[in-house]
Amino acid sequence: MSAMEELTKELARLPGIGRKTALRLTYHLIRQPAEQSTRLAEALVNARERVRRCARCYNLTEDEVCSICSDPRRDSTILCVVENASDIGAVERSGEYRGLFHVLGGHLAPLDGIGPDDLTIGQLMSRAVGGDAREVILATNPSMEGEATAIYIQRQLAGLGVTVTRIARGIPVGGDLEYADGVTIAQAIAARREMR
Amino acid sequence: MSAMEELTKELARLPGIGRKTALRLTYHLIRQPAEQSTRLAEALVNARERVRRCARCYNLTEDEVCSICSDPRRDSTILCVVENASDIGAVERSGEYRGLFHVLGGHLAPLDGIGPDDLTIGQLMSRAVGGDAREVILATNPSMEGEATAIYIQRQLAGLGVTVTRIARGIPVGGDLEYADGVTIAQAIAARREMR
Repeated sequence: MSAMEELTKELARLPGIGRKTALRLTYHLIRQPAEQSTRLAEALVNARERVRRCARCYNLTEDEVCSICSDPRRDSTILCVVENASDIGAVERSGEYRGLFHVLGGHLAPLDGIGPDDLTIGQLMSRAVGGDAREVILATNPSMEGEATAIYIQRQLAGLGVTVTRIARGIPVGGDLEYADGVTIAQAIAARREMR
Repeated sequence: MSAMEELTKELARLPGIGRKTALRLTYHLIRQPAEQSTRLAEALVNARERVRRCARCYNLTEDEVCSICSDPRRDSTILCVVENASDIGAVERSGEYRGLFHVLGGHLAPLDGIGPDDLTIGQLMSRAVGGDAREVILATNPSMEGEATAIYIQRQLAGLGVTVTRIARGIPVGGDLEYADGVTIAQAIAARREMR
C-alpha cells in the first residue's frame, strides 16, 4: 500500500471520518509544510504516552492526581459520578459544580459483558464510604444503560450514610451528557433529587 | 499547554474539523490502544516524507515518475490539465480517460499574487509542444479562476499546432434541473447536441 493510501486508511479509522473525508485530509496534509504533519504526529504520540488516569477519580491527566482532585478549593464532600472523562468537561463548563468527580469508565452493559468489575464502581464505594463524601450525585447518561448503572450504584450505596442523588432529566432522554449545553447541565444539577 | 490540548489544537487545524470534533477525536484516540495513535503518527510522517511530485506531470507519487506517466498503455497524445492532484482521481474514476495528465498546482489568482510562474504552466508548454501531445484538454474547475486559467493557457498554446479543448459544462448526471443554477443551465443549453 502506498504511503498516501496508508494515511487515508488510518484517518478513516477515526469516528465520523469516512473514506472521502480521509482522502481530502490526506491531500491537505501533503500540500501543507512538513512541520504540520510532524506536529500532529508528535501530538498524537505525546497525548497517548503522557495522558493517564487520575489515581483518585480516573479523570484523564498528565499527573498522578488530576487538577480537579488536587484543587483545595473544591468541595470534597460531594462526588459527581460520570460515565466518561469527557463528561467532566461538560459539567465543568456549566460553571455550577464545585465538588469532585468519579469516572466510571463506561456503563453497565450485561449484553456486552460489561459488569460492575469492569467499571470503577468498587473504587467509588471506597471513596464514598472512606472519605469526606456526604453526597454522591449520579450523573450517568439518561439512557437505558446509564439509568441501570445509576440504579445499581444507588443500591450499593444504600444504608451507608451517604446521600445519593440523580441529576434531573433536563437532558433529553437518549441524549448524551457530553453534548449538552452548560445551562441545561446547570439546571439538571440544581434540580437533582435524592434517590431512595 | 497539556498534551491533550496540544493534540486537540493540531487536529482542529485540519479542514472541516472544528474544536468540538477535534476534542471528540482526542478523547477517542486516548481511549484506543496506543498502536492506533502510533500507526496514524507514522502514516503522517511517512506520507509527508515519501510522497513527492511526479517529474513529468506533477501528480503525487512515491517514485520519480507517477504510475500513470509510466504506464505504456496510456495515450501520450492527449494531456488533461487539472488544477490539483486530487482532481486526477476524479477523472480516473470516470473510467473514460486513457491519456496523460498535467497538474497545475492551483489556478491563477492575481489578487492573491498567484501568477503563471507559480503554477506549472511553463512545464505544460514544454510538454505540449516538445512531446507527442496532439490535444490538451483543459479540465480546470468551472469557477471564475479555473475559467480564467483555462483561457490563459489556451492563449499561450494558440498557434502551436496543438488542439486545445475545454471539458463541457452542464447538468450533472443524476442531478436535478430544478436545483441547477442559471449559469449552468444556460451553458447546458448552449452546448446542446442533436440527438440521432
